[in-house]
Amino acid sequence: MKILPKLESKWRRLKKRVTRPSLVRKLDLVHESARKKAFQESCDTYKNQIENEYEIRNNLPKLSHGDREAFLSDGSFHQAVGRVLLVAEFFAMMPVKGVTGKHPSDLSFSWRNIRTCFSLLFIASSLANFGLSLFKVLNNPISFNSIKPIIFRGSVLLVLIVSLNLARQWPQLMMYWHTVEKGLPQYKTQLSKWKMGHTISMVMLLGMMLSFAEHILSMVSAINYASFCNRTADPIQNYFLRTNDEIFYVASYTTALALWGKFQNVYSTFIWNYMDMFVMIVSIGLAAKFRQLNDDLRNFKGMVSKCILKPSKWQRSNNFLQNMSPTYWSERRIQYRNICILCDKMDDAISLITMVSFSNNLYFICVQLLRSLNTMPSVAHAVYFYFSLIFLIGRTLAVSLYSSSVHDESRLTLRYLRCVPKESWCPEVKRFTEEVISDEVTLSGMKFFHLTRKLVLSVAGTIVTYELVLIQFHEDNDLWDCDQSYYS
Amino acid sequence: MKILPKLESKWRRLKKRVTRPSLVRKLDLVHESARKKAFQESCDTYKNQIENEYEIRNNLPKLSHGDREAFLSDGSFHQAVGRVLLVAEFFAMMPVKGVTGKHPSDLSFSWRNIRTCFSLLFIASSLANFGLSLFKVLNNPISFNSIKPIIFRGSVLLVLIVSLNLARQWPQLMMYWHTVEKGLPQYKTQLSKWKMGHTISMVMLLGMMLSFAEHILSMVSAINYASFCNRTADPIQNYFLRTNDEIFYVASYTTALALWGKFQNVYSTFIWNYMDMFVMIVSIGLAAKFRQLNDDLRNFKGMVSKCILKPSKWQRSNNFLQNMSPTYWSERRIQYRNICILCDKMDDAISLITMVSFSNNLYFICVQLLRSLNTMPSVAHAVYFYFSLIFLIGRTLAVSLYSSSVHDESRLTLRYLRCVPKESWCPEVKRFTEEVISDEVTLSGMKFFHLTRKLVLSVAGTIVTYELVLIQFHEDNDLWDCDQSYYS
Amino acid sequence: MKILPKLESKWRRLKKRVTRPSLVRKLDLVHESARKKAFQESCDTYKNQIENEYEIRNNLPKLSHGDREAFLSDGSFHQAVGRVLLVAEFFAMMPVKGVTGKHPSDLSFSWRNIRTCFSLLFIASSLANFGLSLFKVLNNPISFNSIKPIIFRGSVLLVLIVSLNLARQWPQLMMYWHTVEKGLPQYKTQLSKWKMGHTISMVMLLGMMLSFAEHILSMVSAINYASFCNRTADPIQNYFLRTNDEIFYVASYTTALALWGKFQNVYSTFIWNYMDMFVMIVSIGLAAKFRQLNDDLRNFKGMVSKCILKPSKWQRSNNFLQNMSPTYWSERRIQYRNICILCDKMDDAISLITMVSFSNNLYFICVQLLRSLNTMPSVAHAVYFYFSLIFLIGRTLAVSLYSSSVHDESRLTLRYLRCVPKESWCPEVKRFTEEVISDEVTLSGMKFFHLTRKLVLSVAGTIVTYELVLIQFHEDNDLWDCDQSYYS
Amino acid sequence: MKILPKLESKWRRLKKRVTRPSLVRKLDLVHESARKKAFQESCDTYKNQIENEYEIRNNLPKLSHGDREAFLSDGSFHQAVGRVLLVAEFFAMMPVKGVTGKHPSDLSFSWRNIRTCFSLLFIASSLANFGLSLFKVLNNPISFNSIKPIIFRGSVLLVLIVSLNLARQWPQLMMYWHTVEKGLPQYKTQLSKWKMGHTISMVMLLGMMLSFAEHILSMVSAINYASFCNRTADPIQNYFLRTNDEIFYVASYTTALALWGKFQNVYSTFIWNYMDMFVMIVSIGLAAKFRQLNDDLRNFKGMVSKCILKPSKWQRSNNFLQNMSPTYWSERRIQYRNICILCDKMDDAISLITMVSFSNNLYFICVQLLRSLNTMPSVAHAVYFYFSLIFLIGRTLAVSLYSSSVHDESRLTLRYLRCVPKESWCPEVKRFTEEVISDEVTLSGMKFFHLTRKLVLSVAGTIVTYELVLIQFHEDNDLWDCDQSYYS
Repeated sequence: MKILPKLESKWRRLKKRVTRPSLVRKLDLVHESARKKAFQESCDTYKNQIENEYEIRNNLPKLSHGDREAFLSDGSFHQAVGRVLLVAEFFAMMPVKGVTGKHPSDLSFSWRNIRTCFSLLFIASSLANFGLSLFKVLNNPISFNSIKPIIFRGSVLLVLIVSLNLARQWPQLMMYWHTVEKGLPQYKTQLSKWKMGHTISMVMLLGMMLSFAEHILSMVSAINYASFCNRTADPIQNYFLRTNDEIFYVASYTTALALWGKFQNVYSTFIWNYMDMFVMIVSIGLAAKFRQLNDDLRNFKGMVSKCILKPSKWQRSNNFLQNMSPTYWSERRIQYRNICILCDKMDDAISLITMVSFSNNLYFICVQLLRSLNTMPSVAHAVYFYFSLIFLIGRTLAVSLYSSSVHDESRLTLRYLRCVPKESWCPEVKRFTEEVISDEVTLSGMKFFHLTRKLVLSVAGTIVTYELVLIQFHEDNDLWDCDQSYYS
Repeated sequence: MKILPKLESKWRRLKKRVTRPSLVRKLDLVHESARKKAFQESCDTYKNQIENEYEIRNNLPKLSHGDREAFLSDGSFHQAVGRVLLVAEFFAMMPVKGVTGKHPSDLSFSWRNIRTCFSLLFIASSLANFGLSLFKVLNNPISFNSIKPIIFRGSVLLVLIVSLNLARQWPQLMMYWHTVEKGLPQYKTQLSKWKMGHTISMVMLLGMMLSFAEHILSMVSAINYASFCNRTADPIQNYFLRTNDEIFYVASYTTALALWGKFQNVYSTFIWNYMDMFVMIVSIGLAAKFRQLNDDLRNFKGMVSKCILKPSKWQRSNNFLQNMSPTYWSERRIQYRNICILCDKMDDAISLITMVSFSNNLYFICVQLLRSLNTMPSVAHAVYFYFSLIFLIGRTLAVSLYSSSVHDESRLTLRYLRCVPKESWCPEVKRFTEEVISDEVTLSGMKFFHLTRKLVLSVAGTIVTYELVLIQFHEDNDLWDCDQSYYS
Repeated sequence: MKILPKLESKWRRLKKRVTRPSLVRKLDLVHESARKKAFQESCDTYKNQIENEYEIRNNLPKLSHGDREAFLSDGSFHQAVGRVLLVAEFFAMMPVKGVTGKHPSDLSFSWRNIRTCFSLLFIASSLANFGLSLFKVLNNPISFNSIKPIIFRGSVLLVLIVSLNLARQWPQLMMYWHTVEKGLPQYKTQLSKWKMGHTISMVMLLGMMLSFAEHILSMVSAINYASFCNRTADPIQNYFLRTNDEIFYVASYTTALALWGKFQNVYSTFIWNYMDMFVMIVSIGLAAKFRQLNDDLRNFKGMVSKCILKPSKWQRSNNFLQNMSPTYWSERRIQYRNICILCDKMDDAISLITMVSFSNNLYFICVQLLRSLNTMPSVAHAVYFYFSLIFLIGRTLAVSLYSSSVHDESRLTLRYLRCVPKESWCPEVKRFTEEVISDEVTLSGMKFFHLTRKLVLSVAGTIVTYELVLIQFHEDNDLWDCDQSYYS
Repeated sequence: MKILPKLESKWRRLKKRVTRPSLVRKLDLVHESARKKAFQESCDTYKNQIENEYEIRNNLPKLSHGDREAFLSDGSFHQAVGRVLLVAEFFAMMPVKGVTGKHPSDLSFSWRNIRTCFSLLFIASSLANFGLSLFKVLNNPISFNSIKPIIFRGSVLLVLIVSLNLARQWPQLMMYWHTVEKGLPQYKTQLSKWKMGHTISMVMLLGMMLSFAEHILSMVSAINYASFCNRTADPIQNYFLRTNDEIFYVASYTTALALWGKFQNVYSTFIWNYMDMFVMIVSIGLAAKFRQLNDDLRNFKGMVSKCILKPSKWQRSNNFLQNMSPTYWSERRIQYRNICILCDKMDDAISLITMVSFSNNLYFICVQLLRSLNTMPSVAHAVYFYFSLIFLIGRTLAVSLYSSSVHDESRLTLRYLRCVPKESWCPEVKRFTEEVISDEVTLSGMKFFHLTRKLVLSVAGTIVTYELVLIQFHEDNDLWDCDQSYYS
């Protein structure tokens, strides 16, 4: 009966082999842990370093800024975009209630709201103004240059209508955005929470200020011009006759009409600038979400590559890594997917605005470059003209680069996926990688073109080509010709 | 001998472990079913909601429309396209027998059929007309503008011959289409069955009406013009002398020739419009098939993501899901593949028509935009001209967008595949995904260009570039110059 | 001790379960074979049908053609291209020995061979001619039009040198081609063997004949022209003075020089046409090899999809299929890979010729289209000019389409791989599919552009754009201006 | 108790079956080794051949060159680029200390270093010169041609500032480069180590010499020109007045200013040439690293495909292959990844220089081609002008081709991966292949465009298009017009 215990022991060994590869594996582990011990020190150094960095990041802005209010941001897009929409509402766009509320569920749209009524009223007013412009342009010879007022007012009108429609979808969009944000890995520091909101505020502020400066310069040069061609004795009347010639082409001068015209001009100019800024702000928001995910992946990559988690408990951590990884990657993939869907929804909602913004910029840069060949009649004109041209080109470049950053950030995920070590490589990581490779996550202009960095070059090439051809038709327009107007 | 039962019990346990992971798995299941119970309520709600929606959808059009005939559509492309082809046959195209038959097997083509004879006769007549136009154009100085009649009549002639060839293949194509449709997931509602046919009818009706309106306007302005340049005393003769100048360039006026010319004009205009509409209709058909598949995938996605099937019987349903999935996806993949092959076959059959249609539109838009620089001699001319230009641009845009929708719908499948949960992810889904990613399913112009949304922008860019260059050669043509004709 | 046999029997069952899934699997097989029996009849029908087709194909050309010599082709590229190279050798290109030999190992290149000497002599002669042309052009005002002789003679010279270099590599290339061909699946019919050689011969014959016709027409119109501007009394001398003005610009007239000039003209014209034809012929060869592979895949697909091999012995055939498949696909993949490598090698060898050919065609079409605006001085001129223009455009289109067919055929493989049923899907098929998707197998112009169907459109677009711009500089050249020459 | 040993023996067999598939596998192996024996002889031949080749390669340059110093290169980029940077430092760029040191850790940057001070001083001096140029240009009518001095000096200034910034990052970049190089497979021969450094030296030497030759020719033609338009009696003063007209536009002539202007000119010309060469040199370095990896893969491929390692010990080598392969491929993949990351880092560092270089070349080729339409006033001018034009085009082509070689080499890896035999195919090879396919490893111009061979064609197309349009505005500038200057 002695062989039975022998048999039994074989049993045990067999079972062991199935459950644990015993010796061979143990040797591997010994070898592995020996190899890992070298990383041990650098591991603690790395961790301490990261923790220090976090503390520094957390303390730094607290000390330098001090305004805790702005700092207690929760990093949500809804909160970051609140004041931007408030400004828009003041200029009769995006009539949504509750934009500064704490939670996106406070948002609502109603046709009977005072904001909506104001918006509708302004649309009607813009429509009238557009009609007057159209009437004046069609009654004069048409050229590439002379249709500028129609393009300008038509775009503004279109954006107004689109923004009204967008306002109706805004509460749902923000709710979806909120859901996606909840699912994302949490920000590590208060600073990173605060960053997106800060960038959005800065873009808005800078855009508004430059737009305001341009309008002031435009007024100065128009007053200068009006005083030269004084039709009447009243300089103010001259100014209004000039800047709102589409109105006084059909009506005689009254102060009310002049003020209406001025009001239209100011509001239109703002809306015309706002559409570019809005595309930028949405892009910043979307790119920030991808960056939030990428930051988490970078941290993970750092942990994996620079120090192995708890090498003293290598065997357990190894199991931990192997068990955790697929779930970890599956979660990240779903988060990435959600941001992609969010990106799609936002693109559907704003792609008409994007297309209007890009075609407008393309047209206006061509027109302005053509006008740059004219000799400037006065210093005021020259300053206004070059400021306006540089602002226009700068704004176009900014909107191109910010909107292409969504695509850039979405591709950056790939860089971290490439560095996943062989041991953590699993079907989920593979699926994630393939999805990142094959998806083209971008904002677009009605899907006709996608906003990537390569677009910038092709837009620039198009401008140069058109410009070279257009120059041939150019005749130096006498800006002192009082029968023509270049303000509208 | 006591150890033997022990040994035996170990045996059992070993066997158990192989066949069922027993305890561990059971715990998992308990945990899982606990997690799933939360979804239970929302599950029933979701199902009821969907069922309600179906009922609403089914009832809604029944009440509002009432014509049961049109409503009892079986959702097949053959049935939907029947009346469209009937109209084409009236205009000497696509001489196939049995286009309004219930089943595609009723379709047949024969050289001896009356339709075919009529078609051949008209081709001969068109050839004569084309010869006359060619003779007239070659005997005058050639310019970008003056070759318009040749382009027009040449395209019509080419499309006629291609459509005759297409008619021969039509029965086989429809049989293949029928086979593919049989294999697709069934429509859930009567409304979705009815939708494709309805869209096709609407496109056809609208196209025909606009085309008719344009022809009437063309006649009005031609009569206006002919009465101004009256060569003879007879206003009708003047009209015909003008609109068919290629005939009366070689022959003297007879009523028979005038009527023949008029008949040619009306038919050519229809065929010229019909080729765009035909491309649109085939695109609508193909896109609808992809949508049918996508709808099924969306339903599946909804079921999987929003509520788990019968959570009370979770274990069984889990097995069910795991067993069903590969087959389900394999079937969907083969269905997708079949639509792709169908798309390929249709593209081979109609790609020459597509290319003629696109190059025609490109050329005519360039010509018309150039002419828009002319001063219009009369209101009738202006109305006709701008109506015609807008119709042309609108039609080009419509054909571009409808045909690119095939590509868009085929890519949409990817969106649902991306959302397949980790548990259902299997090699079949992977294969399906990779095929959707790497295939470029589009209609094409002889494979030289593929019809996607990006094409629209490049066509627009080409038009602008050519236009800018062409403007340089433009001289204002006096439309009251009675020696030239702009009607053909 | 009774439990031991019990234990033993459990042993047996356990072993069975591991080696064969016994009952469950058997039931599956029964079910499967029942499902397959339905296909049985169609299977035999399909096989018989295919066999009949083969017989028909084999008999058909035997009866209709009768020349067994040409028919006993072994389907190799070396044999098919033999006579083409023989013609080239007559025109001082590709001085390789043994081009009409049975086996590529007969090929050899030697600097001392009479062919090589002739080739080198002609290169020297062409160089002198090119120098004379360059001298004449640089001593006259340079325009887009006037550099035509340099472009023409320069290209010919470049192609001559490249072809000499190609001749040195030709034996190795043909040996590699031979190796690849040996590895490919055998042709099923004599007809398919014969096809590639036949296409190559037809292309060569048609190209030569059209080129000859063009040269005759060119001579007729030149004689016509020379007789009008007779500088001397001798009409033959007039003709030579005109067609070789670059020689007589520096030297006075002698018959020897005139004959040398004529010889140069005839040879240059042939070489200028030959480079296009050579690119076509290599493309036909490469595309044929891909087609050979695709035909094999189509047969396999037909067998798999339409009838299952020997359903009565389903179990065995199933094993057979499962065992055979990976090997089958692995072989096909390696064959595909070999053709790709062959394609790469050929592209490296001829891509300079391809680039010269394409840029030449682009330039000459632009020049000829520009000249088409001139009024033709005589009917002989008009006939020559339009024949030449249509020949040029047709040749460019032919070379574009034939060379893009390599890419098209290489992509076609994907269509068959898509239809591999789930059961035969294995990592090898997956790898094959992924390689076909990601490889871009084309001929190229120095890798600067790849020859696909999309290139045709972009070339056409480029021609239109350049043409529209060039027209602006165009002045109607008086072709009766005897100081200028348009023959070279 | 007899059945127990029987049971035990069954145990053994069962265990055997699990660990080794015994008979079936043995038969396979016998069959396999029989198949492999055929390769045996060719195997030894192949190995001997390769070893001979190595010896030949190692001996060949030793005998022919002899300078052991240059030959004892360790193949690192740091060492290869040392002398290049030394030259740059002499011309006030890249003020890094220790560029000729043995190890990259010797590199350092300090603001207080003499090199940095010299660099900063020269930037200030260039800024002054740029200001003067800008002032002169803005005070004259602006045209495509007249802004050349601003473009020239502006680019130089920009490159100077970028290179200063690059100098700060250089030590870290070189350290990273060093780390990557250490990880790469070792060079097999001394010759391959020496190659990269040699190419870099040759490019630098040739570039410098041609640039110097161009400058001499420029001086000769300027002296020629200045002596014609002698404003003053002093020929040297005339020369300086002409070549530095932007200085003497605001200041009166002093020798100090003239020398400063000359110094600026010489240095600017060098820097303007250097930026192209720098892009080339970095490209050569990156491409060499990819080639190093590819060479290793080619050797591996050769071993695997042409002879099986030690076929006499097939079984063991088979295990060896199977065990080694994943690790081998994983290592190669990580090496490839590291070079990609290196490529990314270098691109971030130099992409602004790349963009300036490409846009400069594009602009200058357009300007020079336009000027080529002018009639040259003297032989000196003509020689200088055509030398300068050909140098410019050659340099642009060289920088395009060298920089696109990075992309070409990175894709070449795919060719070897395609040839991995079925037996070695493992998930790691698959992952490697997919990464090579989906990554686009190139240098770029600020990510706006990527440097591939296709870029060359699009740049050429752009130049032709712009040129055709620009020609229309061209008027023949009288180069003897002494009021204008073409030297700057």
